[in-house]
Order: sequence, then C-alpha cells, then structure tokens
Amino acid sequence: MAFDKVVRGGTVVTPSGPVKADVGIRGERIAAIGEGLSKIDRGAEIIDARGHLVLPGVIDVHVHLDLPVGDTASNDDFVSGTRAAARGGVTTLIDFATPMLRRGGRMDSLSRAVDIWHAKAEGKALVDYAFHVCVIDWPNHRREIPGLIERGYPTFKEFMIYQERHLGVDDDVIFSTLEMMRDLGGLLLIHAESMDVMREMVRRHHTPAMMKKHGAFCHAMSRPNFIEAEAIQRAVTWSGITGGPLHIVHMSTGEGADIIREAQANGTPVLSETCPQYLVLDDSKLRGRNGHLFCTSPQVKSPEDSERLWQGLRDGEISIICTDTCTFTREQRAVWKGDFTRLPMGMPGLETLLPVTYTAGVLGGRLSITDLCQKLSTNPARIMGLAPRKGAIEVGADADLAIIHPKKRIRVDWRKMETNCDWSPYQGWELAGFARTTLSRGEVIVDDHRVVGEKGRGVWLPRRLG
Amino acid sequence: MAFDKVVRGGTVVTPSGPVKADVGIRGERIAAIGEGLSKIDRGAEIIDARGHLVLPGVIDVHVHLDLPVGDTASNDDFVSGTRAAARGGVTTLIDFATPMLRRGGRMDSLSRAVDIWHAKAEGKALVDYAFHVCVIDWPNHRREIPGLIERGYPTFKEFMIYQERHLGVDDDVIFSTLEMMRDLGGLLLIHAESMDVMREMVRRHHTPAMMKKHGAFCHAMSRPNFIEAEAIQRAVTWSGITGGPLHIVHMSTGEGADIIREAQANGTPVLSETCPQYLVLDDSKLRGRNGHLFCTSPQVKSPEDSERLWQGLRDGEISIICTDTCTFTREQRAVWKGDFTRLPMGMPGLETLLPVTYTAGVLGGRLSITDLCQKLSTNPARIMGLAPRKGAIEVGADADLAIIHPKKRIRVDWRKMETNCDWSPYQGWELAGFARTTLSRGEVIVDDHRVVGEKGRGVWLPRRLG
Amino acid sequence: MAFDKVVRGGTVVTPSGPVKADVGIRGERIAAIGEGLSKIDRGAEIIDARGHLVLPGVIDVHVHLDLPVGDTASNDDFVSGTRAAARGGVTTLIDFATPMLRRGGRMDSLSRAVDIWHAKAEGKALVDYAFHVCVIDWPNHRREIPGLIERGYPTFKEFMIYQERHLGVDDDVIFSTLEMMRDLGGLLLIHAESMDVMREMVRRHHTPAMMKKHGAFCHAMSRPNFIEAEAIQRAVTWSGITGGPLHIVHMSTGEGADIIREAQANGTPVLSETCPQYLVLDDSKLRGRNGHLFCTSPQVKSPEDSERLWQGLRDGEISIICTDTCTFTREQRAVWKGDFTRLPMGMPGLETLLPVTYTAGVLGGRLSITDLCQKLSTNPARIMGLAPRKGAIEVGADADLAIIHPKKRIRVDWRKMETNCDWSPYQGWELAGFARTTLSRGEVIVDDHRVVGEKGRGVWLPRRLG
Amino acid sequence: MAFDKVVRGGTVVTPSGPVKADVGIRGERIAAIGEGLSKIDRGAEIIDARGHLVLPGVIDVHVHLDLPVGDTASNDDFVSGTRAAARGGVTTLIDFATPMLRRGGRMDSLSRAVDIWHAKAEGKALVDYAFHVCVIDWPNHRREIPGLIERGYPTFKEFMIYQERHLGVDDDVIFSTLEMMRDLGGLLLIHAESMDVMREMVRRHHTPAMMKKHGAFCHAMSRPNFIEAEAIQRAVTWSGITGGPLHIVHMSTGEGADIIREAQANGTPVLSETCPQYLVLDDSKLRGRNGHLFCTSPQVKSPEDSERLWQGLRDGEISIICTDTCTFTREQRAVWKGDFTRLPMGMPGLETLLPVTYTAGVLGGRLSITDLCQKLSTNPARIMGLAPRKGAIEVGADADLAIIHPKKRIRVDWRKMETNCDWSPYQGWELAGFARTTLSRGEVIVDDHRVVGEKGRGVWLPRRLG
Repeated sequence: MAFDKVVRGGTVVTPSGPVKADVGIRGERIAAIGEGLSKIDRGAEIIDARGHLVLPGVIDVHVHLDLPVGDTASNDDFVSGTRAAARGGVTTLIDFATPMLRRGGRMDSLSRAVDIWHAKAEGKALVDYAFHVCVIDWPNHRREIPGLIERGYPTFKEFMIYQERHLGVDDDVIFSTLEMMRDLGGLLLIHAESMDVMREMVRRHHTPAMMKKHGAFCHAMSRPNFIEAEAIQRAVTWSGITGGPLHIVHMSTGEGADIIREAQANGTPVLSETCPQYLVLDDSKLRGRNGHLFCTSPQVKSPEDSERLWQGLRDGEISIICTDTCTFTREQRAVWKGDFTRLPMGMPGLETLLPVTYTAGVLGGRLSITDLCQKLSTNPARIMGLAPRKGAIEVGADADLAIIHPKKRIRVDWRKMETNCDWSPYQGWELAGFARTTLSRGEVIVDDHRVVGEKGRGVWLPRRLG
Repeated sequence: MAFDKVVRGGTVVTPSGPVKADVGIRGERIAAIGEGLSKIDRGAEIIDARGHLVLPGVIDVHVHLDLPVGDTASNDDFVSGTRAAARGGVTTLIDFATPMLRRGGRMDSLSRAVDIWHAKAEGKALVDYAFHVCVIDWPNHRREIPGLIERGYPTFKEFMIYQERHLGVDDDVIFSTLEMMRDLGGLLLIHAESMDVMREMVRRHHTPAMMKKHGAFCHAMSRPNFIEAEAIQRAVTWSGITGGPLHIVHMSTGEGADIIREAQANGTPVLSETCPQYLVLDDSKLRGRNGHLFCTSPQVKSPEDSERLWQGLRDGEISIICTDTCTFTREQRAVWKGDFTRLPMGMPGLETLLPVTYTAGVLGGRLSITDLCQKLSTNPARIMGLAPRKGAIEVGADADLAIIHPKKRIRVDWRKMETNCDWSPYQGWELAGFARTTLSRGEVIVDDHRVVGEKGRGVWLPRRLG
Repeated sequence: MAFDKVVRGGTVVTPSGPVKADVGIRGERIAAIGEGLSKIDRGAEIIDARGHLVLPGVIDVHVHLDLPVGDTASNDDFVSGTRAAARGGVTTLIDFATPMLRRGGRMDSLSRAVDIWHAKAEGKALVDYAFHVCVIDWPNHRREIPGLIERGYPTFKEFMIYQERHLGVDDDVIFSTLEMMRDLGGLLLIHAESMDVMREMVRRHHTPAMMKKHGAFCHAMSRPNFIEAEAIQRAVTWSGITGGPLHIVHMSTGEGADIIREAQANGTPVLSETCPQYLVLDDSKLRGRNGHLFCTSPQVKSPEDSERLWQGLRDGEISIICTDTCTFTREQRAVWKGDFTRLPMGMPGLETLLPVTYTAGVLGGRLSITDLCQKLSTNPARIMGLAPRKGAIEVGADADLAIIHPKKRIRVDWRKMETNCDWSPYQGWELAGFARTTLSRGEVIVDDHRVVGEKGRGVWLPRRLG
Repeated sequence: MAFDKVVRGGTVVTPSGPVKADVGIRGERIAAIGEGLSKIDRGAEIIDARGHLVLPGVIDVHVHLDLPVGDTASNDDFVSGTRAAARGGVTTLIDFATPMLRRGGRMDSLSRAVDIWHAKAEGKALVDYAFHVCVIDWPNHRREIPGLIERGYPTFKEFMIYQERHLGVDDDVIFSTLEMMRDLGGLLLIHAESMDVMREMVRRHHTPAMMKKHGAFCHAMSRPNFIEAEAIQRAVTWSGITGGPLHIVHMSTGEGADIIREAQANGTPVLSETCPQYLVLDDSKLRGRNGHLFCTSPQVKSPEDSERLWQGLRDGEISIICTDTCTFTREQRAVWKGDFTRLPMGMPGLETLLPVTYTAGVLGGRLSITDLCQKLSTNPARIMGLAPRKGAIEVGADADLAIIHPKKRIRVDWRKMETNCDWSPYQGWELAGFARTTLSRGEVIVDDHRVVGEKGRGVWLPRRLG
C-alpha cells in the first residue's frame, strides 16, 4: 500500500504557494504531494479536504503554560493548553523553561528548570513541544548553556525588565550571552523594554489620583512606545557589536519595526516576532471596566502601530507571529484591585492564533495565505531549529496539517473553547480559520472542530539551529 | 496509469529546500512529488536521478538571439541558441523584441518587432520562450503598450544609453513608461548607464595614444563604476516618484547593489538582476591580446564588485541571475581593429549559466542550492509573469527539469558546445552543473549531455504579471 | 584726525552678534569699532545711528541686469538696478556674464561676454559689482576658464535646462566643469531642474484646454517639486564623484534642502542659496488675473516648502539669500497671451531683499538678525570670494553699511521705488528694513531713504576663492 | 582719556577671522577694536602685541580642582590650578561642584556642594570661574535644580558609570533630568560610558595573568570604543525623546562623533566636547613603565579616533575643546601597584590646553586659528551661558586676552610649570602657544610668561543659557 492516509482534494499551501493537490501520508510523515493520489492508492484512508485549505500545522514559538507567577500560575496547563492549540491548528508549541527563585534565595539551575518543564508536559501534551530556556543568574547559568545547546535547547531568553521579579538581566549579561550564541550556534530571545525609564513612568502613574482616574489604562500610559524602542535599539546595538544572533520577542511598536529594518539592512543578525494582540487590538481596550483583562507586557499600542507591524510582516523585518499565551482567569486578575502594578499579565491565545491572523490578515487583505503560513509555520520552524521536520508541507516532513474552511466563520465564545480561561479578548468576534481537522504526525487529533486526540501523545522535539 | 514518467531517486530542489523524492510526470506537467512513486506506478518510464540533483529548469530572462547589430547579427540564432540553452539546463528564455530603424528613418512599430521576433523563433526553438519588448520611439510606441500587455507581453525595456544607435531614451520617456507600468500592471527593464558622462569618458580614452597603450582595456577605463551607479540612482528616483515598477538589468557594480538595497528599504518598487560574467570575471580580462573578446555593456568590474553582487544575491536586493547572451565570433569581433568603440559587445552565456553559477556559487560556498534555484528559476518566473506554470518543482507546474551531477566537472571547450561561438570566456574552466538530462514539458530534450529534442518544439509563453 | 566719519550710537551687527558701538571710518574702510569713538574724534563727520541697526551692506550674489531674453531684455539696467540695490541696503551685487548666440550660430566667447557685461556696468553702477560667468559651449568655453579664474572670475554657472534656449548643458559638461573647479579653485553654480521630465510635464499642460482652465498656474503644474529635486540630486552626485565644489542656485523646494543636508553630512562639497520669493510667496500667486507676473524659474512652491527653506537657513544647509532679480514690466509680460511657455520669467528683487527677509525673517521670529546678516552678507562674501574686504563689519573691511530702523515699516509701492518695474510682488506689503542710510566704501549713497550717490561710482571687484 | 590700555599692533582673532588691529580697553572691558587706537589716545598704557596673535582668553569648561577621590584629592587646587590656567591663556574655568557621600551614608545636597566649591575657589582663584553641578541623588537633588538655575548654575552633570563610587545614575534619572533641562532652560552634561558592559570588560581583564602581561594597558583593553559609543547613543536617544538639551563631555571616539553628527542632522538637541589628550595621544601610551600615568576616564583611543575627532571639530559636531583636568602626582598614582582598577584617573591639562591645540591644530594644519578660538572660547561661552561677556574679542566684552607668539616654541617641562603635578603627558614636547601675556578683565596677570596676578582676584561668574 502506497499511503496510509490521503488528504484529498484540498488547496495545499506549499512554501511557494497554494496548489490543488492531494497529500499522501505514510506513517507519521508526508510521503507525496500530487494530483490524484487517492486514485492511485484506493486502500488509503481518505481525509476529504475538498473546498478546504490544507495548511502546515502552526508552530507557536511563544507560550507560557502552567507558569508560576507570584502566588498563582498561568491557568492553562499542558492539557488544556495543547487541546486549545490543536483546535486552533497549532501542532507544535515552544514553552519557556523558567528557573524559579526558591526560598532561601536559591535560583534554579537551567537543567532543573528544563526538568521541571519536561515534567509539566510529559503525559499531558496533545501536540509536540519544545523549550526555550530563560537565563537569569548569569554566573551560574552560563556554564549550563553549552550543554543545553548540545542536548537540543539552542534558544535562550533574557528579560531587559523584571529585575524586581528576579528575571531581568543587565546589558553585560546580554552582551556575554550574545557572544556565546555567536560561538555556539544559539539564538538569544529578548524581551525588550527599558527598565529604568519604565520604572520612572510607572512611578508617575502609580498614584491614587491617577489610578482612580485612569484605572488599568495607567498600564498603557506608563509604557510609551519609546520604552520598547530604546530597549530594542540597545539590544540591537549589542547584537551588532558582538555578531550574536538576536530575536526580539513580542514586538509591539512601529518604532521597533523601523529599528529592526535598519539593523537588518546593515547586516546585524537580528530577527523579530509579533503577536495577534498587537495586530488587531489597541490600547483603547485598556479603558473601561474590563480594561485590566487586556493588560499584557508589553501592552498593546495604537492602530497605527498595528498597521506598521502588518507592513513589517509583509516586508520581512518581522519573521514570526506567535501568541505569548499566558492565561489568567477573571478571578486571578481580580487581585489587582485597581492597582495596575499588581496585575498578572498575559492573555489566552493558542486557540485563536490562526483564526485571528487568517481573518484579519488573509481575509482582511493584509497578507497572502502563503505569507501567513510562512509567518506561522515555515519561519518558526526554520528559525527555531525545527526544520525540515516541521514547518512546511513537504515530502519527508512530519504530517502536521491544519485543514480549514476558507470562508466559514465561527463566533468566538470562551464557554465553547478548550482553554481554561473564562474570558477571551476576541469574545463575540466572527472568525474564520479554526481547524476543522488537525493532523499531528499523521494522526487526526481534531476532527470536525472537536479534539479527538489523546493527551500525552505529544513528544518533545530536540532542536538544532541551521 | 498514474504517471507517464517518474524521475526516480534524485534530490529534488523545491522552493523550500532539497528533499529526497521522486517526481511523477503526467503529460507535460508534474503530477506528484513523493517517496517511492516509481514503486506505485510500475508502468511509468523511469528516469534515473539517483545521485543527482533535480532542479527546476533554468529561466534565462535576458537573451539576445539573432539580434541585428550594425552590419552583422549576434551569432547564435534560435536553433543554436536554444540547443545551447537545453544543454545548460535552460528550459525557458526571454528574448527582446527590438524595433529596428529602417532605411528612410522609419522605426519599426512594437508589433512589427514582436512579429519579427516570433518569426525568428518559430520552428526553430528547442525550448520555450517569451519576449520582452524594447521601447524606443515613445510617441508611437507608447500607443502599443496597453495592447501588448493584454496579449501577454507585460515587460518592456528601455536603454539610458545608445542614443547614437537609435535605442536610447531620455528621462521623460522612462518617467512616462513607469507611470504606464504602474497603471497597467507592467514592468520596465532598464539598461542603466549615464549616457552623457560615459560619452565624455569615451572621448577621453578614444585617442590613438590611449588605445595603443591600453587596447580593449580602454573600454573598462571609460566606464568607471559611477557610470552605472548614477544611472541606477536616477532610474530609481523616477520609480520612487511615479510608483512604477522597475527592474535594473545586468547590474555590474557594488554601488548599484547599495542603491537598490536602500531603495527597497524605502519602499521603492525596484528589482534587479546580475549575470555570471559580473560574478566570476573581472576587468583584468580586458587586458592583453584577447581582451576585446571580453567587452560587454556594461563591462565586467572588479573582484570586490563581484563579491558585493554575491552578497546582494544572498541578501535579496538582486533577484535574478541571467546571461545577457549576445554572441559574436572572433571574426565578428575582429572588426574593432584596435578601436574599442567599434566592438560589437556581448558574450555567449546560455550554455554555461547554470554550470558557472553552480560551481562558483554553490560549490564555492556563496549560495545554497535552494537560493541558486530561486535566482535562476523561481524568481525569474514570478517576476516576469511565468509562474506558477514555470519556475519551481511543484505539483501542477510544467515538468521542466534540469538533472545535474552534484560534483562531476566537465572542462569547458567551445569546440564541443552547442553555441555557434568560436570562443568562450570560460574556456578551460572545470565546471560542474551541466545538465545530464533536461526535460521540457515532460519531454527529455537532453540525455546524457547530448541534445535529443527536435528544433521547433519550443512554444511561446504569454505572460501576465502578478 | 582719527576718523573721517563715525557712525554713532547704533546697534552694530557683527558676525558674532549685535553690539552697541560706534563705527569709525577712515577713507573707504572701517578703522575701528568701539564705544565713544565720536567723543574721541570730534572732528569726524557724525552719522547718527541711534535707535537703528547698523548692518553690513547686503551682497546680492544672483542678479540679472540688462539681460537679453528673446527680443527684449530685463528691464532694470545697471543704473536703475543699482539705485534700487542701494535703497535696499545692497552694496555689492554679482551679475552673470552670459554668452549670447549670435546670428550665424556663433556663441560668444566667455571673454566677450565678460567684456560686454563690463560695458553694461561701467559708468552706470552706483554700487560695487562682480560677475559670474555662464558656461554653455563647453568645447570652446572650457579653454577660457583657467584664465578667467586668474583674472578674478572664479565662479561659473551652468543650466541643467534651457537647452532649447542655447543655455543648457548636459551632465558630461557639469562633470567636467566640476573637475576643473576642483583643480583650479573655482565654484560651479547650477540651475538644477530636470530638463527631460520638465519638458514632458510642460507638454502635458501646454494644451488649449489646460491653459484656458489654469492660465499661468500651468507653469506651476508643470514643475512638481521632484523636477528640482531630481536635478539637485544628480548634480550633487557628480559633485560627490568628482569632489568639485558645487553651489545650487535659487533652491525652491524642501526636498532640495533635504538632499543638500544629507550630502553635506556625507562630506560632499555642496552649498546652496534661496531667494525671498521662495520664502514668502507660494504658488497660489500664479492663479488669477495677474498670475503670469509671478512666474519665475524655478517657480515658487508651497508654504510647506517655504518653512523647510527657513529651517534650512537656520540649520545651515542653505548659506545665502539672494534675489535672482530679473525684471520684466507688465508690458513685457503681456507677450504671453495666455501661453505660459512664452513668458519671460523673473521678478524685481534688489530693492526688497533686505526688507522682505528682515520683516518675515527677523520680525517674524524665523531668523536672528545675526543669522540674517550671515545669509545676506557674510556668507555671500566668503563663498563668492569677496571676503575679507566685503561681508562683515570688521576693522579693515570696506565701510559698506546699511542702517535700518528696527521697527518702522514702509508700504511697498512700485511707483515710489527705484526699479524700472511697474509692479511689485510685494505691492502693498508693510515692510521694515529699507535702508535709511547706505554707505558704500565710506560714502553715503542713500540718505533718509533717498539715493544720493552718483551713478558710475561703483567699482568692479576681482575675486579669489578661499 | 579714551582708553586705559591699548593692546597694540597684534593680529586680533575675532569671531570672523584675524584682523590687524589695536584693542582699546577701558576698565575691565574692551572699548574698541580699531586701527591706530594707540595713536588716538597717547595716555593709555600700551601693551605691545606686534608680531603676536591676540586671542580671546580661553574658557576651559571641564576642570576638577581639589576634587576628593577616595582617600586623596586631585593635586591642583584653585591656587596652583588657576596659575597654570593663566599661564596657558585660560581666563575662565568651569569646575564641577560634586556632592560627596558622607559617613553614615548621607549624600551632600547640591547647595552644600556648591557652597563647598565656592569655598575652595574664593580667595584663591587667579582667573574667573563658574561651577557645573553634579546630580547624583535624584530624589533629593532634583528639588534643588530649579533654584540653582535661577541662581546662575544652569548646567548639570550626570555620570552613566561610577555607580560603585556613588556617582552614577540610571537612565530614568537622565530621562527626568533632560525633561527638566528642557523645561527650565538648562543643559545636561553626560559622562557617557556603558556601565554594565564595561564592568564585564573590566572583569575579564582584572586577573593576575592579564594584569601581569598587559599592566596599565588593561585599562584600555577593558574599554573598547563601543563602551563609549553605546552610551552616547543611549543618551542621545533620551535627548531626542524628551527634547532635553544634552552635551556629551570628553568624547574620545570616532563612533561618538558619528552618532552626534547623525543626531544633529535629525534635529536632536545634542552637543559635544573633546579634550587635547584624545586629539594628540593614543593608547600606545598605556603600554610600558609609565603607562599608568596616562590612564584617564574615558581613556585615550587610537590615532584614527583622533583624526575623526579633528574632523568633527572642523565639521561642527564637536563644539568645544576642554581639558578634563584632574591632576594626580606620581606618588598618588603609585597606589595602583599594578592593578588598573585602583588608579585615580585624570591628567594635568590647563597649562597646555592652548599650546597643544594651537601646535597640533593650527600649526599642524588641522584647524584655522579662527576655528580654534571658536572651540576654545566662543563656543564654550555661548553654550555654557557666559556670552556675550566672555568668549570673543568684541566691543563691550570683558577684556580677557591671551597674547601668543605664532611660532616660538617652548619645551614642556613640568619642573618649570605652575601645576603642582610632577609629570606631564607632554613632557619634552616643543609647543608654541603658551601665553606671553594674559589679561583678565583688563588686568595683566601673565607677563612675559610669568604669572604676575594675585591669587583671589578671580570672580565667580553666574550664568544663564541663551
């Protein structure tokens, strides 16, 4: 028998564009792309994709499941999170193994953080996963980096803020990490915001009068665009000086896109990503009664920033769209009690990543379907070291597929979603692009929009950069 | 029967990279890409590609076959030229329909030029072909442009030099053509050199003493890099002002690449191409006894320019590699008699395009094989309006394939080549990348390096820009 | 006796700012600047400047007096023109010796042009004068340049347009002239507009329908800003390549200022000037019944351009304000009969240069008085080779002074002015800054706003660049 | 009597150039500049300047006299320092009132620091002086800034390094200070080096092996150019965002000049200064036995940097040359005992500022004498709020003059100098430009190279920015 399964009659989005073809699957991998494959092999199981788009499974490179924050933890774990992922056509996600400061002032080693994150995922994940590793305690953590790269963890993250939460690092650590990335073949992910000036901005708004008047919008007021822009510029400077590969995560400003564009034109090895919230929401959401639910870090900016970011996706200075998923329920958010500095920040996102970007991007005329798949699958796989196994519909690649209807819209309602979250930033929006069928390594895990795969079937993916 | 032919066991270079796979062909088109296709369909004719690279057929977008120049014509016509093409893995070429000034001062209409070029090709061409159209006599030619775009000729060429040969146009024509391209969906190709200052430079070198001392090298001395750079900058300025799509042909200078890069960063709709001679030759070739054979327009520059052009291919400001083939024999060249202004300029190139760029680019570590195919096939097809039918190994595309051995080198000897030319700029070079097998629309036209296809089987390709 | 004259009690504008002081004059030169000089030398003639500003005499570097244009000539000659100058505080002007095409197709030599212009000025000029020399017929004119520089004519002008009027030159001439300027210590002045595209723009508007509808405004419509900008960019490119010193005359666009700024930042030896009409008028003046009077070349642009030009004066990319005086009466203008291509172009300007720029610039808060004197006197002298004899109130310099009341305004009325022109672009404007007293080489030539000097007392000034 | 003193027959360097003239002095001020003033007033005291240059007194805007550093203090106090100044033609200096951390962790208020510095100077200073004020403890110091500006201290300094010495501030303080400068009319002076990465660089070199091998050169090795460049870029970013006026002190790198140039071109209100040591010394001085004497902060860089800085002085991105005088004797330096991190850093400079820059700049063909006086006197006065009283030879200005012989050279020997320092970075150099005569407010304080003025005659100068 030639194929185990044939995805029949869909419009297959390959890296160079859509093509009418069948996809033949043998075992976990794509064995052929061609016309009439289902006729050749009548024994194969047929998955009917007529009238549908067949996309490479989405790879979300920025996810925080089950992340301890203060006294609580992000509300989606590897069970609910990966079910949400699958329903959104996401077949691979990359979480962040994050060392914790333990009682007595001891910071976890990187290996311990990695072990903990493996334990969080194993037996629970429905889709495949990998881990970035957060570097905090440089004198100790630096020694573990070479070994981690060897073992398949070649991407590291550092924060330019959150010193007060024992996460942030100073420029010397960024500088030294970039040197190490350059020498060992790694990639440094940076959360870029200007710590010192942000602290001053927060101070100016962290008064009873301001908080009473502006509520959660104080969060936006305390992060003018230059807070992100200056930090990106600085990180880019260190990348240019060291030659160390740099990736700016969750970029939210037009200024950031301008800086990346100029740096790339000058040969600095810098890449960037943005998220749906920066593309379709703006900070007017932070006003009003539920404004506090929309607080993220960095926060959403203006409609002009959104359009500049779409432009950056088209022109290439932004390589990836991902979610920065970090779910907190309304109850978890309620702890803020009007003080924007006490908010656990983040949003649900895995389940709506593809629908939001497909609807606003492709149906909205801002990105071609081919470009969208590049930003959601092909670039993430290539940049984060998952290619050629993941990221494109190609012979030999894993049969990770998201089959969507090109037009049919579904009204977003958190009550009907897989995430544990009890609200959605897109509640009530009519979105196309939810996965009718999701295949992970040849297995159907979502069928007719319902999750049918078993938890724990997802595997960890070791990675190596190109 | 599932397939008529299966190309078995090669490394297939798809737009997103090489993959071990068979290529199934049905009729003239690619029906499937997959593993084990030859096993599925035992009735298909097998073309063994084991140990070989299977590339998309090369598309040479810059060819002058049978071009009248003064009292003579370029020596390769559509018979010898397309045989040379096939042996070099080129399965599509685009020539330039060039209006001629007739006795009595009448300039051919564009339609007449197109008719003449069709007549030159029909019944002779072994591979497929299309035509750019040269615009010269603006007041008359402009009226024909909309109809030509309609009929499948959407790309036009103008010269910033050669006013004395009744080819050049002034800035107002470029300006007006760009407006028309913008409005009608065309693309303007520009030969960019600064006419006036070049004329002055030529004047300074066109003296008995200079020509005696420097011979053909006077040709290089009279074209400093700024001759091309200023003209590119000017053309780019008009493109920026009008918003009209522009393509700089046969770019030869690093300065040109810098200008394109900056213009693209600013959103100007400009693209560019370069040629093998600018990538692997330098103007030291113009010194010595046979220097006059190497005179081209623009002429080859320095090794530093070559490296900058390779960089431009890697970074993206240069989209296409093509040949500017325009063959003249040693006898045709002999008319110069020491006066560099009397030289018919141009070189043979079709047969060596893929071998030179594969050897210097891929084996030389300057371009990946995937990138090379992008510059030789995918981008040419996309930019010049031949996609998705041509340019990539994709289901549904024409089965135009070049099968090459990745390592085996052949010594270049014009005596053994298909071109009519009696010399080669690469004579004696050991090059890999000659096509062992070439398929054009599913038909084997080169087998074991020998041309086996019939003349006249090539068809004209109407085009439409994306 | 220490001084012949003492200008007493004014606010003297020195290069580093205004200072309360007397100016002591001995013979034709400034002998001292100091407090209480009139008390030291009670025998000196006292010119009371109390309550007034004492400025260095204005140097207008761009004047066309008695210039033949077609069948007529600019209406102010060296008598009326220099009387107008004096009343406007202008104590030196530089006219353009312009070779004429004679019957039979012979172009004047540069020497002949210079002789003719000397003849125009001698015995007539009230103030001092010098000549730029227009280069047109390169093969012949080039040979005269070294001798002219030797003899005190180091500045040359070339036109990028007006080929049809036998004035324009092509890029090769500009290129070669810049080389010569670099080698011999000269300066090339360029009228920068894009000939070819301007011709196309004129063609588009030169129709009965357009001219009927838009009248003289067709002149503006046929010269979009990019007409000047592209030409400036091109001239600047040649300056950068050759290293030849370049000066852009009568710059009218904000884009031009941007290009100059960037070129200067990159070390290109380029300078520029603008004129009052570009600073205070805009092209809405070309609409309506008298629009044709306002046609200049280049024409006035938008208020946004004006503000950018003021900015350029402040920031330094524009070094000089001058007039481009070229007077035509209403009768002379009437020849256009509705056809904007037949207009003799130019405006009166000498008499209002200082009043307009003082009123709009200094009283309008756009330039300090010190900066204005730099743009009107000090820079012109320094750049055009008249320093240290002219251009600043300094010990040893010629006693060329313009004494103005800082506030008192006079209503402009051409009937009461010295110019022969029978209209004024500023008719009815209330302007401060007319010279109450003008001194030229120590002699009072304007007293209480009335011209009292004798014609013919002005002398020719040989020049040498720094 | 018209004048009290007349400086006769010198070449007086005015802001617009040298002029042969006398300078008439009445009381403390310049009363006239003119020819033959000594003949007018035969009663005046004559100071013969024939054959000499008469320069405006030098204003050194960056001086640390009697500055406590660790257990010691810089060795020149206001007696020896101002005597050295006078002999070097310096007639005004600006020191830095620097709050000290007292036992118990209390930081001086700004007012207290100012009081202390007044006490250091009063009764001792031979020349006039003013104080910048160092801002360290933002929450407390910020409140004093408005009052200090009112009282004549409008310039403030912050350090981006030296956090460990209780001097450095973070970006939020710089940001907030720039806002305050913008609003209140002040100027922020910044010592720009990247603290975090510098610390890492120091760590890498602060090993027994490195220090043994490279000695004091470790100081240079631990401060690559990018340490200064990144910090300048960051400070400039904050200036651009806030619109707050910024002045980069003691700029030592070519990269810095590039950044300033670009920022100024973009309208950012930033200025800069450099010092003689960065113009004529290079870091090869840090090798060898006495290398530790040459350690400064920032340290001297390469000859290429020096040439770029000279270029910046010519082109205008650098406005001021000053000394950063901070004298330590060989004994004081000896505390380092091979550890470059223990060195008190700084050099003597006041006495050689004019001689070094005159000799290397003017006699070396790098700066005109007019430009040198602009960088040493006119710009310092204008930028730091001392104009029009100080900074130029102008009627009404203070009669602060330095009379130097244009050619005569003196061999530098610290034994014969006024500084307390027992070595000189220029020991043995043959320098022209020492003041034969120095006048401060009309009084001769150096006569025939000997100090003749009395200590304590210098006065404090309140300042106000323009």
